[in-house]
Amino acid sequence: MSRELQSISFLASSTPAAQEAARRLSVLYGNDKPENAGVIVALGGDGHMLNTLHRFMGTGVPIYGMNKGTIGFLMNEYREDGLRERLAAATQNVIHPLTMTAIDAEGNTHDALAINEVALFRQSYQAARLQIAIDGIVRLEELVCDGVMVATPIGSTAYNLSAQGPIIPVEAPLLALTPVSPFRPRRWRGALLPNHQTVEIVVLEPDKRPVNAVADATEVKSVRKITIRESATDTGLILFDVEHSWDERILAEQFRY
Amino acid sequence: MSRELQSISFLASSTPAAQEAARRLSVLYGNDKPENAGVIVALGGDGHMLNTLHRFMGTGVPIYGMNKGTIGFLMNEYREDGLRERLAAATQNVIHPLTMTAIDAEGNTHDALAINEVALFRQSYQAARLQIAIDGIVRLEELVCDGVMVATPIGSTAYNLSAQGPIIPVEAPLLALTPVSPFRPRRWRGALLPNHQTVEIVVLEPDKRPVNAVADATEVKSVRKITIRESATDTGLILFDVEHSWDERILAEQFRY
Amino acid sequence: MSRELQSISFLASSTPAAQEAARRLSVLYGNDKPENAGVIVALGGDGHMLNTLHRFMGTGVPIYGMNKGTIGFLMNEYREDGLRERLAAATQNVIHPLTMTAIDAEGNTHDALAINEVALFRQSYQAARLQIAIDGIVRLEELVCDGVMVATPIGSTAYNLSAQGPIIPVEAPLLALTPVSPFRPRRWRGALLPNHQTVEIVVLEPDKRPVNAVADATEVKSVRKITIRESATDTGLILFDVEHSWDERILAEQFRY
Amino acid sequence: MSRELQSISFLASSTPAAQEAARRLSVLYGNDKPENAGVIVALGGDGHMLNTLHRFMGTGVPIYGMNKGTIGFLMNEYREDGLRERLAAATQNVIHPLTMTAIDAEGNTHDALAINEVALFRQSYQAARLQIAIDGIVRLEELVCDGVMVATPIGSTAYNLSAQGPIIPVEAPLLALTPVSPFRPRRWRGALLPNHQTVEIVVLEPDKRPVNAVADATEVKSVRKITIRESATDTGLILFDVEHSWDERILAEQFRY
Repeated sequence: MSRELQSISFLASSTPAAQEAARRLSVLYGNDKPENAGVIVALGGDGHMLNTLHRFMGTGVPIYGMNKGTIGFLMNEYREDGLRERLAAATQNVIHPLTMTAIDAEGNTHDALAINEVALFRQSYQAARLQIAIDGIVRLEELVCDGVMVATPIGSTAYNLSAQGPIIPVEAPLLALTPVSPFRPRRWRGALLPNHQTVEIVVLEPDKRPVNAVADATEVKSVRKITIRESATDTGLILFDVEHSWDERILAEQFRY
Repeated sequence: MSRELQSISFLASSTPAAQEAARRLSVLYGNDKPENAGVIVALGGDGHMLNTLHRFMGTGVPIYGMNKGTIGFLMNEYREDGLRERLAAATQNVIHPLTMTAIDAEGNTHDALAINEVALFRQSYQAARLQIAIDGIVRLEELVCDGVMVATPIGSTAYNLSAQGPIIPVEAPLLALTPVSPFRPRRWRGALLPNHQTVEIVVLEPDKRPVNAVADATEVKSVRKITIRESATDTGLILFDVEHSWDERILAEQFRY
Repeated sequence: MSRELQSISFLASSTPAAQEAARRLSVLYGNDKPENAGVIVALGGDGHMLNTLHRFMGTGVPIYGMNKGTIGFLMNEYREDGLRERLAAATQNVIHPLTMTAIDAEGNTHDALAINEVALFRQSYQAARLQIAIDGIVRLEELVCDGVMVATPIGSTAYNLSAQGPIIPVEAPLLALTPVSPFRPRRWRGALLPNHQTVEIVVLEPDKRPVNAVADATEVKSVRKITIRESATDTGLILFDVEHSWDERILAEQFRY
Repeated sequence: MSRELQSISFLASSTPAAQEAARRLSVLYGNDKPENAGVIVALGGDGHMLNTLHRFMGTGVPIYGMNKGTIGFLMNEYREDGLRERLAAATQNVIHPLTMTAIDAEGNTHDALAINEVALFRQSYQAARLQIAIDGIVRLEELVCDGVMVATPIGSTAYNLSAQGPIIPVEAPLLALTPVSPFRPRRWRGALLPNHQTVEIVVLEPDKRPVNAVADATEVKSVRKITIRESATDTGLILFDVEHSWDERILAEQFRY
């Protein structure tokens, strides 16, 4: 069934503006239950879009965002007319999230997906000491830092950018490994890794220097060992208006100043 | 009384190597009580030296460090012979610490001194939102970041350096205001401030985005407002061997790579 | 015909060490004319290797470098024994150079290939003013700078790295657009572009602010307009020992400090 | 004699806007010869202001700039009324230029003053190789780079900023030594030096890798050795409106983004 004919479910963030938009659009287009809908329209900002993408990961249902929030990097422009035509014409991009497997201080294992990044961060004022291996080979015996992250191309414009990591075109088969405040090795700037590589991070002195891990917004406290790789099975689907494609957004973002 | 004739007190860190050094030196030179000593000899690494400087801040008793630790940027070379001669010849540098006044979530006020830096840091995975004023004038309405610090010239080679702040010659009348992972303003690199200026930082959305403050190793949880200035009254005294002066260390450090 | 059986031509740089190596290897393995050889063995450093790759671009003859120079990022380890076995086992990587088309002050057109990068640079002490378009769309109306370059993944560890551009894995379909000393837009860091995009750079005020262009070592003075794209037709072939592959070199380079 | 009563000389840059301003102001305030004037009013942009400061260096005549140009970091706001009152109230800052002594390929010595910076730059596409000594002690045996500069606090917001050097408060007794595209040592970020130190730079392989030196806008081709220090004798005087002091400009500049 073409996207044009599919039933729509509107999912709004909790802000009054997004809620009001959902009401108005439901009158115009109907509002199916999410589990029956052929397409989800997310109303809000990038945070709400990320949540919606997580919720429908692996279902095969595409998400189309309309901006009723603050940043809107993942969102299309908000307009009420012609929505079915826009949905029909939109370009679909496939999202490959990261899987994080984290073992905590009690030996429990936590799994989570990340669309943007998996980040490790010191829990106290004590700098973290981390050992980093790529595909089973230790590449940094000891990174003394505030933290470190593995970011996807999507996430490369988010936290990765704050930490001075490079912006990556969305189709590039790469992951960014980016440190935050590296004390040793001094001035280490991180690495761009092929997206088939697995990153393993071991927390050294975890009792004296506790570290938390965050996969997007899922936080695991006091981790001992983290494994991060691109998921082979989970995928999300995101829709963008043709005249404002994702490639175009990334390119434009790199020339913003 | 000249430094040569003064009584010495040896204060060692808790490591076996430092403790053993204290025992051996006490046999050679005696070991007075700290409160009576004319000079303190600190044995350990930079962390122990910082603790010792804090402990004797404002007493007028100079501290001479000998390296029995890992980094030793503040330490002289460890040697057992000729200590009185080295003490007599050493150059004395005056340390001006920062005073931090922090108001926490309950409205309590905490004061602490910092020889290296006063740093603010996000407590959860939520980025901090901070407003920064210099001498009462707001200069950044909103800094979205992992954290921010005010560092002294001494501290400029420590955490400030990890966050890519500049190394400052020890006699320069400057403070470094250095952000950690600034998300907005994007790519903001911080500022070098005259050391007579006062920095005031207000935490925005402190409940959603809690922030801790750390003056060297004194941590205050969930701060609302922080005031940082160079102390007008507290001073520490640190001794360096002439052939390896502090100026020389800072200069050499800037050419390390 | 397998590489093992092919005739070898040794091409040495002008240094005595490289010349001596060529003499010794010729005794062991024979030394065919370059035009007849099945494989070229380049003896020298990275500069010599680049020259050799340029010389045999598009011929289908693979180049195997052995290090008799200073850096050797593109070179295999120098050893005299077992060369035929090493050649037979070596991994072949395909190099896609950039084509530069430069129009100079007299309106003449110059074409050149670049394996590492095409760089523009101010000729006098006057900062360059450049307009940059990607695939025909102007993305920077005015870049005031010392210069700017487009670097391949191979070149990403060379001049691009000095200018703080990111190191790119050799198989990634990307080009780095990296500025040198950008004055306006201040703190602009460049962009990672998909390798199918064309970069066009127009020199503004070319008389007051003359600019040279360099494709690897081919310099064109006083250029007006430059077009840079990945070549669709020219390719070079480079051989690396299996136990020290190009991927491995790039990865290791990113963890060097 | 107070500044209020002094005769004024208007010196305009060559742009029509600046020339027209000079005509109008001359009608209102008279226009003395520069050699007789008690104060010079420079009309144009920062480049013209720098030229005017150079021209009157060491004469004791203060320069007051009014902005009729593009950047205006050194300029006061353009207004025609109340000029005598503004001049009388203005704050005077003393400028300490750098002296450059350059020895060229023929062994000739060239002296020049620099208010902003002395910069060395490669003349061809060959990277420069430079040896750097501070106060007679070699600190970098070999800097492979596009160039390097010594910048004053005034110049710290100019070329130094493009090369990612730190902005220095105008009263700080410091000089910035800042590299451009350092290839070796990789990621070297330069140094902040006490302003009493002398920097000596020797060009290595000057025939193969020729280097030019520029003191503000005075260029010396093919230099062999450069000595740079703060001038002990030459000073310039620059006037700023009180409500927009130089300190304030520098501070504000550091919070610009």
